[in-house]
Amino acid sequence: MPKRVDHDERRREIAEAVLRLAATEGLESVSLRHVAAEAGVSMGRVQHYFRSKDEMLAYAYEHQARRHEQRIVERLRAAGAPPTPRDVVRTVMTEILPTDEASRASWLAGIAFFIRAVSDARMAPVVAAGGPAVIELFAERLDQARAAGELAEDADPRQEAVILWALVDSQASAIVIGGRTPAEAVATIDYHLGRLFRG
Amino acid sequence: MPKRVDHDERRREIAEAVLRLAATEGLESVSLRHVAAEAGVSMGRVQHYFRSKDEMLAYAYEHQARRHEQRIVERLRAAGAPPTPRDVVRTVMTEILPTDEASRASWLAGIAFFIRAVSDARMAPVVAAGGPAVIELFAERLDQARAAGELAEDADPRQEAVILWALVDSQASAIVIGGRTPAEAVATIDYHLGRLFRG
Repeated sequence: MPKRVDHDERRREIAEAVLRLAATEGLESVSLRHVAAEAGVSMGRVQHYFRSKDEMLAYAYEHQARRHEQRIVERLRAAGAPPTPRDVVRTVMTEILPTDEASRASWLAGIAFFIRAVSDARMAPVVAAGGPAVIELFAERLDQARAAGELAEDADPRQEAVILWALVDSQASAIVIGGRTPAEAVATIDYHLGRLFRG
Repeated sequence: MPKRVDHDERRREIAEAVLRLAATEGLESVSLRHVAAEAGVSMGRVQHYFRSKDEMLAYAYEHQARRHEQRIVERLRAAGAPPTPRDVVRTVMTEILPTDEASRASWLAGIAFFIRAVSDARMAPVVAAGGPAVIELFAERLDQARAAGELAEDADPRQEAVILWALVDSQASAIVIGGRTPAEAVATIDYHLGRLFRG
């Protein structure tokens, strides 16, 4: 079904344009015209693929999440040996931190979506769902770690997953404005994982 | 020295206007004219009290931090009994969470300053210094708790202080967009403090 593939590819190209604009200028004044120019396509094409600006923004946000997941899966594969729950958690956390241009742009785009969500009731649930997806992944791995006897005895996987997300979320923002270096953030993550896991 | 008092009062009034604008419209398009109108004073008066927009924004940001500290001190005093390190940490954390209109406005203003810091090299160090002030307060209380034998044995006060700030920072943002309720955030904070402190 080559037509279908093309369709998805076009939508992704437009989503990438939205993400570039989000990272550089924010989403306050973003318009379909603006996005079309950034993507190098006609307004008509953007309107063909997305019925509304809200639909386009939601798709772009979810596209970024999928792209991010893909990068994490690739990093885990590149690591070779079957990853332990602790390896997976650490890789996800360090991959989210803005340590290079690509991850910094991702984080800035995420902030732009967050800002929009504060004042846009339709965008709020889309963005609010972004944290819980990572939290769910953490919780599953912490459950595995507990079953394998690798988790601190008094640790609750669900609450600890929320705290892991909080740690990476806040450290990423601090890195973006120069409050912490990536190395300092990673040191805090490693310290925290050291208390959370056993052995 | 009544004149001096007046001067500080005028500056605070202008800072309050900046914070209201930051919380409702963000700081992207804020101007001295805009602030003067919001404060109900002349442009000339704003220019008399602040030599530049940067100076005004930095003052407003620091004014908000001082106002926040004041509120926390009052809450601790109202609590009566001399607070333990754990009481102080919990009060600061729950006071930061946006649980009413005033704390929600504070948090939104903080986000507006954060956004500005991302693209404004002069604002970045002012905003980057905001987290560490709270972290320092946490670290001092955790040191006290350790000296009193009230801290978990494997806990490092400095790293734990960073994690406490991360937790409240991330939970506050999640509350603002409806991803978590204040009660859920407080439950996670209490869970975390339960693992960090002994007894």
